Amino acid sequence: MSVSHCRDELTPLLLLARSARVYPDRVAVVDGERAFTYAELAARADALGRALRDAGIEPGDRVAALAPNRAELLEAHFGVPACGGVLCAINIRLAAPEIAHILEHSRAKLVLCDPELRAVVPEGIRVIELGAPYEQLLAGASARPLAPWPEQEEARISVNYTSGTTGRPKGVVYSHRGAYLAALEQLIEAQLTCDSRYLWTLPMFHCNGWTYPWAVTAAGATHVCLRKVDPAVVWRELRGGITHLCAAPTVLTSLYSHPDAAPLERPLRIVTAGAPPSPTVIARMEALGATIVHAYGLTETYGPFTVCAWPGEWDALPDEQRHRLRARQGVPPLIGGGVRVLDAE
Amino acid sequence: MSVSHCRDELTPLLLLARSARVYPDRVAVVDGERAFTYAELAARADALGRALRDAGIEPGDRVAALAPNRAELLEAHFGVPACGGVLCAINIRLAAPEIAHILEHSRAKLVLCDPELRAVVPEGIRVIELGAPYEQLLAGASARPLAPWPEQEEARISVNYTSGTTGRPKGVVYSHRGAYLAALEQLIEAQLTCDSRYLWTLPMFHCNGWTYPWAVTAAGATHVCLRKVDPAVVWRELRGGITHLCAAPTVLTSLYSHPDAAPLERPLRIVTAGAPPSPTVIARMEALGATIVHAYGLTETYGPFTVCAWPGEWDALPDEQRHRLRARQGVPPLIGGGVRVLDAE
Repeated sequence: MSVSHCRDELTPLLLLARSARVYPDRVAVVDGERAFTYAELAARADALGRALRDAGIEPGDRVAALAPNRAELLEAHFGVPACGGVLCAINIRLAAPEIAHILEHSRAKLVLCDPELRAVVPEGIRVIELGAPYEQLLAGASARPLAPWPEQEEARISVNYTSGTTGRPKGVVYSHRGAYLAALEQLIEAQLTCDSRYLWTLPMFHCNGWTYPWAVTAAGATHVCLRKVDPAVVWRELRGGITHLCAAPTVLTSLYSHPDAAPLERPLRIVTAGAPPSPTVIARMEALGATIVHAYGLTETYGPFTVCAWPGEWDALPDEQRHRLRARQGVPPLIGGGVRVLDAE
Repeated sequence: MSVSHCRDELTPLLLLARSARVYPDRVAVVDGERAFTYAELAARADALGRALRDAGIEPGDRVAALAPNRAELLEAHFGVPACGGVLCAINIRLAAPEIAHILEHSRAKLVLCDPELRAVVPEGIRVIELGAPYEQLLAGASARPLAPWPEQEEARISVNYTSGTTGRPKGVVYSHRGAYLAALEQLIEAQLTCDSRYLWTLPMFHCNGWTYPWAVTAAGATHVCLRKVDPAVVWRELRGGITHLCAAPTVLTSLYSHPDAAPLERPLRIVTAGAPPSPTVIARMEALGATIVHAYGLTETYGPFTVCAWPGEWDALPDEQRHRLRARQGVPPLIGGGVRVLDAE
């Protein structure tokens, strides 16, 4: 028997390349007044990869990012690994000494930095300010194509620092393979399609935005960036056609409590995690027309991991019972990982 | 930095294990008067694996199946690989000499055989007839648990023989990894959820039913078996709540031409492949309320591979233009694989 073998290394880079091919002219990302199509997003990420290579970033080198949710941070989720770099997106709400610790501990060679955060970066590390300097970097990248990457799917794609609940922040390394699989899992659980419009209420620096930079891109959907969560702005975006968002329960409380809260005309699917949503949060958001997907995870699991699977027959249960069930999230993911739920009812 | 590493080998076996845990009491498969829950399907597949091990099947051994779409063939998609066996589901419409050739060429050690097909199996190979003998085999399996499998995700899960257009049938080997990834791709493209009801109009022996034995199971949806395609029966099932099916365009022609054809009350998503659906097929099925997903593939690509991705804005195009677009399928899959479309418009 003759044997021919075909294998692609699993990587989120494949997902952007596919969407750039399938949906070149559709809007990939909206960031305030700016919008880029999938062809443009892929070209910008590729330019970032080439520019970082020109700047001396070699496979395995850490590239830090200090930024709110903006197009460049999305680009970094593809451009940094495209040249073999390992993205370290840092929580911008940390105090300056903690940020300095993470930059040092991760041995970051370069920081992609929002102008407003410039002051917290210590001396001695190269900074590329987002805005004009970043655009110049991209424009000046040499045209020589990047070498294909990763050579193996277990290669590192990012490092995310835990919140340090039990000591100093620890670095959790994500692989190309893990990020790809976790992104497909989120695409499936959130039911993203190419017609979805995803609102970036969750910071991209939290566990790589629970892998949504890659999941939304895989679907060919539109990323809508929000640099900070202002409920009035969120409600305006929701009325403008947002179909999906991720948020901690406290964010949901700020949404349903806001004067602009009003029943939605289109389906909205919300993945919530980080703390258990109370029955009130669930009831209030459902009353506004949202569907809540309740997940649990940690930095070590690429963000959301177990989820509340929702069989259709539960829709017919009394409200109280439904909200109690919705508050659970003990179901293991499609992508494996042993899970034991110790506190199942 | 301390390092801990977690990796699951990708395999469809993981998908059944998960659905048995998440949806133990939901119906996994309906086959005529019989129905099994996910807990039962997993238990039966496990018993089949233990019984095959007891019968001397070792990792890498081929186990053939000669059967129409029935619960046992679905079980074989999990039970055979669970003991390390490689499933060879044979096209039951082939002539006896071709079936004999495949049984010999694949070196099948055992055949799971529908009673009606018993006569085409040559002497010298062990046959387990589906029905009472198969049930006895399962009931008699020793309780000793199966060893975890696969050790590596590149292990063989099945071998599918091509239709032999260019010579004698050739065996195409599928891996656990490839089957897992192709199944997730189908779950995403078909938009299967745990509330889906999948009708088995496509034979499971065609490229492992385009990976739907694994994809539908991954979703925790219900398999509805059809031993043969009778349009009157299909229409009865469609009215009974079927949400998804796969079929070649000729099957769709037999459906819309049938006297029982009537507009559907629920959404129905049809994946069609095997030949280009004409604009008439698409228009007639859409008029009945179905959504057509047009795919292209071959035995070597786990069945469907490229697909017609459908951005929402195309819904607003004139009928003729829509049907022309729907007849295309040039979009590469999420799971990779280099594709060049030579005849793009």
